[in-house]
Amino acid sequence: MLQNLTIDHERLWQSIMTMAEIGATEKGGVRRLALTDLDRQGRDLFRRWAEAAGCQIRVDSLGNVFAQRPGSDASLPPIMTGSHLDSQPTGGKFDGAYGVLAGLEVVRTLNDHGIETRAPLEVVVWTNEEGSRFAPAMVGSGAFAGVFDAEYAWSREDLDGVRLDEALTAIGYAGSEPLGQRPVGAYFEAHIEQGPILEAEEKTIGVVTGAQGQRWYEVTVIGQEAHAGPTPMSRRRDALVAAAQMVLTVNRIGRERALACATCGMLNVRPNSRNVIPGEVWFTVDFRHPDDAVLSEMDSVFRDAVESIANGGGFSAKVEQIWHFPATPFADSCVNLVREGAAGAGFSHRDIVSGAGHDAVYLARVAPTAMIFVPCEDGISHNEIENAQPSDLAAGCQVLLHALLQSAGLVND
Amino acid sequence: MLQNLTIDHERLWQSIMTMAEIGATEKGGVRRLALTDLDRQGRDLFRRWAEAAGCQIRVDSLGNVFAQRPGSDASLPPIMTGSHLDSQPTGGKFDGAYGVLAGLEVVRTLNDHGIETRAPLEVVVWTNEEGSRFAPAMVGSGAFAGVFDAEYAWSREDLDGVRLDEALTAIGYAGSEPLGQRPVGAYFEAHIEQGPILEAEEKTIGVVTGAQGQRWYEVTVIGQEAHAGPTPMSRRRDALVAAAQMVLTVNRIGRERALACATCGMLNVRPNSRNVIPGEVWFTVDFRHPDDAVLSEMDSVFRDAVESIANGGGFSAKVEQIWHFPATPFADSCVNLVREGAAGAGFSHRDIVSGAGHDAVYLARVAPTAMIFVPCEDGISHNEIENAQPSDLAAGCQVLLHALLQSAGLVND
Repeated sequence: MLQNLTIDHERLWQSIMTMAEIGATEKGGVRRLALTDLDRQGRDLFRRWAEAAGCQIRVDSLGNVFAQRPGSDASLPPIMTGSHLDSQPTGGKFDGAYGVLAGLEVVRTLNDHGIETRAPLEVVVWTNEEGSRFAPAMVGSGAFAGVFDAEYAWSREDLDGVRLDEALTAIGYAGSEPLGQRPVGAYFEAHIEQGPILEAEEKTIGVVTGAQGQRWYEVTVIGQEAHAGPTPMSRRRDALVAAAQMVLTVNRIGRERALACATCGMLNVRPNSRNVIPGEVWFTVDFRHPDDAVLSEMDSVFRDAVESIANGGGFSAKVEQIWHFPATPFADSCVNLVREGAAGAGFSHRDIVSGAGHDAVYLARVAPTAMIFVPCEDGISHNEIENAQPSDLAAGCQVLLHALLQSAGLVND
Repeated sequence: MLQNLTIDHERLWQSIMTMAEIGATEKGGVRRLALTDLDRQGRDLFRRWAEAAGCQIRVDSLGNVFAQRPGSDASLPPIMTGSHLDSQPTGGKFDGAYGVLAGLEVVRTLNDHGIETRAPLEVVVWTNEEGSRFAPAMVGSGAFAGVFDAEYAWSREDLDGVRLDEALTAIGYAGSEPLGQRPVGAYFEAHIEQGPILEAEEKTIGVVTGAQGQRWYEVTVIGQEAHAGPTPMSRRRDALVAAAQMVLTVNRIGRERALACATCGMLNVRPNSRNVIPGEVWFTVDFRHPDDAVLSEMDSVFRDAVESIANGGGFSAKVEQIWHFPATPFADSCVNLVREGAAGAGFSHRDIVSGAGHDAVYLARVAPTAMIFVPCEDGISHNEIENAQPSDLAAGCQVLLHALLQSAGLVND
């Protein structure tokens, strides 16, 4: 019977479309910022649907919502899946909501066929994944995994000075369940890729083998501010020229290493005046790679290059690493279930590394974890025009079904 | 007698220091914005000094102040010298004021020795040279030379919406003298270099042979905004990487051509977010060269390079020339008088091209013109720490005396 067990494509699509009505924007996107009343409406809708599907709802002290479908053996740790319902200020319909509703669709499919698992299944909605209203991002899953303590998470403030715990109370999602500290059998998260690789290679499923490590830097280059007219080229210490060399070095470091990403996203010039040679430039660097050893090597090549450019032109330059996130390989056992599920169903697939942060990256610290990526149009996300094909979303959900069932075990096995 | 005729070093220095008390700043600079009450105080002081030195004062409809010392032949066009008394918001004591007070010192020296010239001498204070309160810069000399018509100049507004003609009336400097349209025998302007060349080469006098031509551009590079994480290097169209290549090209164009200057002074990144690949970069380019043919060649090399960089990486790029100023060679006859004056007095000197704009550049359109540069400390100007040596200022004034006397002719010759 399991061979032919398929999720309901149409029901999944309708769930996503119905959820997208909450906070719908004129341009076809979604604005549902964390812990606003729209977020409450989204959570309430999920909760009604999950209760209707026989799940028991628990909400923890950070507002993470757990919808449990009981298994036959209550002593087994739950197999979890989920994602988030909050969005970027001008976000899309699929980022987050897809992972939550794919989990719900798996539960509904099992109900339709009267299938009982040995371990319980839990579909989770993590609080404030986007980090748009409260920084940092992924605060709910991070607190669940012990990365942040509760006091820190509660004290986050939005731009109006509203604390996260006040916002939780205001929408009725300050739950009584203790935060984390309970075993999780495995965690799977389905998500749109938010990048262009699967679409470009015409693959339906991305078997996510882990998340890139990241290092963030701030670089300040100081030269000599001077008049653009009377200062001969040979006497200049133009900080923008030095910074341009550094930007190209960052790009080269990325291009010369397989799987590496290297980006200067911000750059500010002082005094930023048309006829004044720039005296100071400040810019950011974002290095990513799935292997921390390669990241360390990128760090060292970059620092050497900055020093060499600065010394060569009489500049002073400071490189400060302001944040880092270690590379997170996912558990082979879970990754294999995803790959096997895609192959078994006949979906084209490839291994892929997640470049963006996801709740799964924190869950990987406390449970065997993997993710399932599906293509999104033109690789565009965090944008109202974010789009994905119903057939791809269904395929990802089908693979999730396989992974959850294999992890939870069947009573009639 | 003329062999030994020397200006009064101490009196010149004291005049500059006294003028610098009007609008003096705590850091030793001057804030005397055009047509403010402080500018009026500066003009009034000059006027009192000039009248005490026997000059007749006339003020034209743009507030330019002409202090005429009569010659023996009233039919000869006047030999003019001057500069401006307005300053940058955080300006120095010497920029502008030196040229006006060097002219006054020449008049005083001639009085001391009872020397009469054939042509009249006029010491001029030009209105709003800096362009800090009212744009554009050099509006008084430009209107005198017919570059701007009076209506345009009067209608300039400051940031508070005050028109230039209102400001003239408010400080009592809306004069009755018609604007320009009278012959000028020659124009000489003494000024600090505002660059580092004379100091570095230990030359006392810069014999200014002309002013650089300038071209100003605005460049927009459009790539593809995308997530810094999930977007592989090979799929990126990072507008900042393309712009960095263009900035280095601008710099190379400047370095590879003698006497050229090339500067990117402003650069703005969109969206300027740490983990977003820049989708758009806007920057400015300032090209300068004393030869318009070289400027045209720089223009063409730059446009080709931008096109090649854009086409090579799938960018769209737009180069817009927003302003230009032709190269202005000064009159050989006047330049020779300056060189001869420096050599005759035994001052070390070199030919130099002015990189900055000066009133002399507009006067050169209606009269044989030259400038005299003296060194300033570290080449720094438009800054409260602007500084110059009394001996250098005196040397420049001495050369000015020579040039004015040779141009105006002596009665007893």
